[in-house]
Amino acid sequence: MGASEPSTRNLEDAHELGMLLAQRGWIVLTGGRPEGVMGAAAAGAKRIPGSITLGILPGTTGGAGPNVDVAIFTGMGEARNAINVLTSDVIVAAGIEGPGTLSEVALALKAGKPVLLLRPSNAARELFQLIRGDALLLEAQSPEQAVRLIEEELGLARLQWSP
Amino acid sequence: MGASEPSTRNLEDAHELGMLLAQRGWIVLTGGRPEGVMGAAAAGAKRIPGSITLGILPGTTGGAGPNVDVAIFTGMGEARNAINVLTSDVIVAAGIEGPGTLSEVALALKAGKPVLLLRPSNAARELFQLIRGDALLLEAQSPEQAVRLIEEELGLARLQWSP
Amino acid sequence: MGASEPSTRNLEDAHELGMLLAQRGWIVLTGGRPEGVMGAAAAGAKRIPGSITLGILPGTTGGAGPNVDVAIFTGMGEARNAINVLTSDVIVAAGIEGPGTLSEVALALKAGKPVLLLRPSNAARELFQLIRGDALLLEAQSPEQAVRLIEEELGLARLQWSP
Amino acid sequence: MGASEPSTRNLEDAHELGMLLAQRGWIVLTGGRPEGVMGAAAAGAKRIPGSITLGILPGTTGGAGPNVDVAIFTGMGEARNAINVLTSDVIVAAGIEGPGTLSEVALALKAGKPVLLLRPSNAARELFQLIRGDALLLEAQSPEQAVRLIEEELGLARLQWSP
Repeated sequence: MGASEPSTRNLEDAHELGMLLAQRGWIVLTGGRPEGVMGAAAAGAKRIPGSITLGILPGTTGGAGPNVDVAIFTGMGEARNAINVLTSDVIVAAGIEGPGTLSEVALALKAGKPVLLLRPSNAARELFQLIRGDALLLEAQSPEQAVRLIEEELGLARLQWSP
Repeated sequence: MGASEPSTRNLEDAHELGMLLAQRGWIVLTGGRPEGVMGAAAAGAKRIPGSITLGILPGTTGGAGPNVDVAIFTGMGEARNAINVLTSDVIVAAGIEGPGTLSEVALALKAGKPVLLLRPSNAARELFQLIRGDALLLEAQSPEQAVRLIEEELGLARLQWSP
Repeated sequence: MGASEPSTRNLEDAHELGMLLAQRGWIVLTGGRPEGVMGAAAAGAKRIPGSITLGILPGTTGGAGPNVDVAIFTGMGEARNAINVLTSDVIVAAGIEGPGTLSEVALALKAGKPVLLLRPSNAARELFQLIRGDALLLEAQSPEQAVRLIEEELGLARLQWSP
Repeated sequence: MGASEPSTRNLEDAHELGMLLAQRGWIVLTGGRPEGVMGAAAAGAKRIPGSITLGILPGTTGGAGPNVDVAIFTGMGEARNAINVLTSDVIVAAGIEGPGTLSEVALALKAGKPVLLLRPSNAARELFQLIRGDALLLEAQSPEQAVRLIEEELGLARLQWSP
C-alpha cells in the first residue's frame, strides 16, 4: 500500500518489494491503479515469470494498471480499502504519504492484520504504537528487511501460490 | 452463479461449465464457498492444469472452498454480489434456485453486463425479459451451448489469461 | 422500492403508500433520488407533518430528492441496495419494473426480511414463490391493503417513531 | 467519532459535544453502538428535545444504542466507516484512541471532508498535517470551541434540521 504520488524512495521501494514478494511465490495485492506505489509494486512483481498480481479497484470498470493480472471491480470507492486489508495476509505500507494509505493501515490494525511499515516517519510510528491494540506492527528500513521480517515473524510459507 | 443447494442437473452443469470455461483460458469467478454451484464450478475449473479460480466471499476470513485459488474477503455479506457482477465479463446463472442468484442476475442487468441463463425456468425467463433494459440476455440449454454462445456473441478472446 | 421510470399506477401507488406509512408514524426509507417510485414515496410521506424520510443514496454526495430528510451517502453504487434492505423492517415493492427493484426484493428474501409485493406481475409472483425460502412474502392490490397487511401480519407498532 | 473504550475526558467531551450539536438543530451521526464516544455523543444529543440521532452500524441487525433514533444497518463491518464519513458534513474526532477512529479521520481527509480534532495528541496532529492534502483540518481544546469553530469556519446553517 502507498501513495499515488509517492517520493522517489517509496516508489523504488515498492518496485523492489513487489519483485521480492513475487520471487517467493506470493500474490501481490494492490489498489489496482497504474500510478504510484500501486503501479510500482505490480510492475516489480510482474518482472518475475509466473507471478500473480491482484488489483482491487474503487471503480465499476476500467482503470486497472497494465501489470494487474486479476482486477476486482468493487464500485465502492475508498470503502474498498477494507477489502484490500481483509484479503491480505500482511499489509506493507511503503510510506504513509496520503490519507488513503493511512486508512488502510488503520483498517488493518482494526482487523487485527499484521502490518509492516517500510521506512515510516516518526509521527506515523508514534501514532500507530499508541493505537495498534493487539495487532502485530513491524518496521523495516529496506524491502529486503521487510520480506525477511515477514518470513521470520509470520512464517508465511502458506502464501506460496502455484497455478 | 447458482444455488448453494442446487438440483443435481444444475450441479452437474456448473461442474462442466467450470471445466469448459477454464479450458478456454478464462478465469472462473464464483462466490467462493465450497458448496453447491459455487463449489462445483470451481472444482470443474481446477480439473484444467494452469487454470485460475477466483472466489469473492461474504465474510472477513475463512470459508473459501478448496478449489479457489484467489480468495477475496469482502466482509460485506450479500452486498458482495455487486462486486461479483462488476468483476465478471459475463455472468452465467446455472439455475435461479434461490434469492442470492436472483440478486446477482438482477444486479448484472442493472450494471449492463451480459447475462447467460442456463436452463432457466419459464418464470425466470419471462421476468428477466420484462426488466432487462438494454443488457444482453442469452439462454442456453447445456454448458457446451453456453460457452459457444459466449464465444460467438461476445468474442471474448480478451478473457484469455496467462500467468 | 420501485422503478425510476414507473408506470402511472405504480407512481400513484408509491405516493399514496408513502403517505399512509407516514400517517402511522413509520419512517419511510427509499433509494433517495428524486425520480420515480423513490421520489413519489418520499413526497407522499412528507405530506404528513412530523414525518421522517430516509434516503440511502448510491453516490458520494448530492443527488438526494427534495423530500428526503436524512440522506445517507454510501458511495457504493447498487451495492447500497443491500443496506436499504437490511435497514428496513418491511420491504414494499411498488411494481417490479426494473432490475434494481428486483435486486432489492431478492436481497430482502435472502436476508429473511418480510416483502410485500404491490400489484405484482404473474411472472414476478411465480418466480418469488419458487425462491423465497422461509421469508414472508405478502401481496396487495392497493396501498391501503398493503398497509393493513403489514399491520395485521407483522404487528409493527414498534415502527412508530417520535423525535 | 471516537473510541469504544475512551478516556474519561474524551467520553465527557463526546457527551457535551453531542448536546451542543443537537442544540443547534444539527443531526448527530455516530457509529451507532451504545459504548464509548458513540454512545456518549448520542446520549448528549438526546438530552435536547426534538433532536435526531443517526447511527450507522457495522452489523446486519441489532446492536444499536438506546439513544439512536435512526439506525442504518450496513452489514459491511468497518467498511461502513466510509459511509459515516461521506454522510457527514463535518467529522469531529473526540480523541484518536483506536484504529477505527483513525480510519475515519483518514477516510474523511481522503474524501475532502472537513475534520475537527478535539484535543488531539501531538503525534496525531503531526501525522494529519503531513497527509491532509487540501482537506480542512481544524483543532479545538473543548467541545464549545469545536462547535464555535464549525459555525465560524463552515457557516453550516444548512445543517439545521426540522421535521
